[in-house]
Amino acid sequence: MEDVVTPGEAASPARSRGRAARLVQRGSQEPRRPYISRRIGTFNILDEEGLSLIEANADRLLKEIGMEFHDDPEILDLFRDAGADVKGTRVRFEPDMCRKIVRATAPQQFKQHARNPANTVVIGGDNTVLCPSWGPPFVHDLDRGRRYATLNDFRDLVRIHQMIPYLHHSGGVVCEPVDLPANKRHLDMLYTHVRYSDRPFMGAFIGSMRAQDAVDIAKIVFGEEFVANNAVLYNVSNTNAPLVLDANMSGSLKVYARNNQPVACTPWTLAGAMSPCTVAGTLAQVLAEALACLSLVQLINPGAPCLMGSFASTISMQSGAPTFGTPEAAKMVLAAGQLARRLGVPFHTVGTLSASKLPDAQAEQEGTWGLLMSLLAGANVVNHATGWLEGGLVTGFEKTIIDADLCGKVMSLFEGIDLSPNAQAMEAIEEVGPGSHFLGSAHTQSNFLSAFYRSTISDNNSFEQWNSEGGLDAAQRANLRWKKLLADYTDPGLDPAVDEELQAFIARRKESMPDQDYF
Amino acid sequence: MEDVVTPGEAASPARSRGRAARLVQRGSQEPRRPYISRRIGTFNILDEEGLSLIEANADRLLKEIGMEFHDDPEILDLFRDAGADVKGTRVRFEPDMCRKIVRATAPQQFKQHARNPANTVVIGGDNTVLCPSWGPPFVHDLDRGRRYATLNDFRDLVRIHQMIPYLHHSGGVVCEPVDLPANKRHLDMLYTHVRYSDRPFMGAFIGSMRAQDAVDIAKIVFGEEFVANNAVLYNVSNTNAPLVLDANMSGSLKVYARNNQPVACTPWTLAGAMSPCTVAGTLAQVLAEALACLSLVQLINPGAPCLMGSFASTISMQSGAPTFGTPEAAKMVLAAGQLARRLGVPFHTVGTLSASKLPDAQAEQEGTWGLLMSLLAGANVVNHATGWLEGGLVTGFEKTIIDADLCGKVMSLFEGIDLSPNAQAMEAIEEVGPGSHFLGSAHTQSNFLSAFYRSTISDNNSFEQWNSEGGLDAAQRANLRWKKLLADYTDPGLDPAVDEELQAFIARRKESMPDQDYF
Repeated sequence: MEDVVTPGEAASPARSRGRAARLVQRGSQEPRRPYISRRIGTFNILDEEGLSLIEANADRLLKEIGMEFHDDPEILDLFRDAGADVKGTRVRFEPDMCRKIVRATAPQQFKQHARNPANTVVIGGDNTVLCPSWGPPFVHDLDRGRRYATLNDFRDLVRIHQMIPYLHHSGGVVCEPVDLPANKRHLDMLYTHVRYSDRPFMGAFIGSMRAQDAVDIAKIVFGEEFVANNAVLYNVSNTNAPLVLDANMSGSLKVYARNNQPVACTPWTLAGAMSPCTVAGTLAQVLAEALACLSLVQLINPGAPCLMGSFASTISMQSGAPTFGTPEAAKMVLAAGQLARRLGVPFHTVGTLSASKLPDAQAEQEGTWGLLMSLLAGANVVNHATGWLEGGLVTGFEKTIIDADLCGKVMSLFEGIDLSPNAQAMEAIEEVGPGSHFLGSAHTQSNFLSAFYRSTISDNNSFEQWNSEGGLDAAQRANLRWKKLLADYTDPGLDPAVDEELQAFIARRKESMPDQDYF
Repeated sequence: MEDVVTPGEAASPARSRGRAARLVQRGSQEPRRPYISRRIGTFNILDEEGLSLIEANADRLLKEIGMEFHDDPEILDLFRDAGADVKGTRVRFEPDMCRKIVRATAPQQFKQHARNPANTVVIGGDNTVLCPSWGPPFVHDLDRGRRYATLNDFRDLVRIHQMIPYLHHSGGVVCEPVDLPANKRHLDMLYTHVRYSDRPFMGAFIGSMRAQDAVDIAKIVFGEEFVANNAVLYNVSNTNAPLVLDANMSGSLKVYARNNQPVACTPWTLAGAMSPCTVAGTLAQVLAEALACLSLVQLINPGAPCLMGSFASTISMQSGAPTFGTPEAAKMVLAAGQLARRLGVPFHTVGTLSASKLPDAQAEQEGTWGLLMSLLAGANVVNHATGWLEGGLVTGFEKTIIDADLCGKVMSLFEGIDLSPNAQAMEAIEEVGPGSHFLGSAHTQSNFLSAFYRSTISDNNSFEQWNSEGGLDAAQRANLRWKKLLADYTDPGLDPAVDEELQAFIARRKESMPDQDYF
């Protein structure tokens, strides 16, 4: 595996003031940065004692209860050979066994390549990669309302995402194109990412067949040898909490691990339903599930890139409905980030989640809360950084645009404070003096282009000006903006020979099987 | 001064797990907590080197440029006697002079008493007190739109705030009742706080006459001797950045300091206009202004309670409009909190600021960002924790309700993670086992009341249920809620003798001068 930082090597980039200063001075004319380089540390919610307690509890769960691996006898053999206690589909692990397997060979940092090398991302260390919404069968926009998603919506979202500088990844199922048969639509989705975006993208997560299709498509795009030695498909493997991995997930996990493609082993839980209704209990379960799946990746292919994931939220104890942007979800992601860093693998989590049906105040209160917590938790990859509504049932076009502005803000915040002499601005204060203003000062003139992050969605004008421009709320302004991004979309182009080969492959694959299911 | 933690004493409350566990177990039936007890530390954006640099720059500004104190010769004498270099209205300080004055006598922590002792707040240490919106001449709600505020709006807001468990303070100018003359309305505002709320409240900030009225009103409510020895009026003194304190502010500052009432010395700046267009430059200026004003408080009355404040945001470099919830504002508040802790005084800052005209996605993206940053910065008092719209021109009724839910969320988050055996929930996971669910488990049953923070504003229901209930957005739901809070308002009552004395005092004061100005 090329580009991998092996265990023991330093994973953090240099935090030199000089580089930070140069970044700031480059300002807005400079090329887009392909991912966030965090320079202000992480927010650690648990102390050493708390973290050790959660780790000991996870070890106890793995030893006393163990984890179930359904319909996949190959996995059971792998674990048995590694020394685990396998009875039926239940696998139990001695304390520290999984941790040792993971730490021995899992890389701390790796690159995921994009077909445009300028968009290649570094996953791990102090870097954060923001990905769009994943999975919703519905889409929503102000003009057409809430409706089932189609391939046309999928294509529009991929093109909008490609136009957003603060997204770093084209993602995967940015919406489910339910106008296509369920057993074939992954082919169209993968093609759409390759054709309309030149950023990194995700594989297909469900089942070994689709995963193999993703690898075969990647080989057409990047070349067989390159794919064998480099990460080009990002993949998420969710557990069925509590403590189960089913064959759909293990099937794709095995394909990606064998092909050296990164797998984010991501327990998915709503505390109160799929894990205990407490933060500490849920954290132990999340860590146990992640440890078992991460060790599976390393047993399949030692050194294959993998991430500890956590998608942990809550339910309403009154109605049972999933809830997002909650205090408990924040506590869980902050602690999970710490647990991943102690384990020594990159951390995958989720972003601007909301249960809101509309791109309204609820959506952004919950979404802003969630994305900030993920960044504070030191997330290396944030799925659903934009667009998520209705607990993941809907990708919102306006929500995407409003969240994208937040993505820009977190990038700017996490770059930290420029302490260069120019930023100290002592001469500027001396020049202006008490009681005057800095609007026309030389320092302001020479810095105004790069001084502040420039919001793409906030209206900061006076009431009168805002009113004279139609008095639009943020969602209405976002509606105009996604249409403009689509209208302005710049096609990155694709080598016609590659395009032809891709289309031929997809046609062959579609012909090889009958259509199945639409949901 | 009673209740004061003198310099050198430990300001932090015990962080025992036992207390945290009890707090969690108490659950929702327990009495409202009068302020937030943070248990998860602060987020420190600058390292020792960065903090020392800002401090050295502030010292350099105080020595080389100094600060202007306009129309208040008494202050100039005080500074001259203390050893400062006074030329005209310009006062220059040797490095470390202000810091030494502040550290020598300023308390690290103190109580502000409410007329209901259950609502008394502790200001300092790991505690945070959330206050409502301050200062807007307009109000907004969905029914009546944007309009000039009246005393009736003021009264409604005070009563709504009194009904919100997550606000800890009745505040001050929750809106400007511009139907009353500007030179008398402070009397009506103070009366309204005393009459309709039993929480702590603020003094009048502008001018010595109004400040003295506030002190006299406090004496009627709390008794003369009690006021002499206890903080009962919270007061903010803003600078005219850069580097000026005018007589309106110094006048009230002196009255409060002499009366042992707390003053939050709060440089107010929009970087790019009133301070340099850089974070580091603005921080040095903010610290310089705060140091000069804090030392003034201590020179007037050594030991008088005071806070370092920071209200630092940005402007749009394109339009000059004030901008809020920005990355730069976040950096400034995080660093300012660190600087206040190093100085050894409590930290005052601002909350859910937004330039939005409506309680929409922009309002909550900016507001959530701002309040979270203030809490992460270790704020001891957060002004404008609810309601602020349009850059402080408007208090929004719906925004107040939506922000109040956020106040509840931050309280829950900052309490930290319960690590009690009950919260570890190991037996619960063992009971449920792989592949099942926790909905009906014994552990869930015995914890469901207190398990999770219960949002007052988020709709987490299915699309179908939400739609059948009218498909309301967050602002529309908040509209229903503030009306319900007003309808359900419980009058805390006021001793009729006190009420009579207050009304008589206010009538005398009003008669003593002609009406002046309305804006």
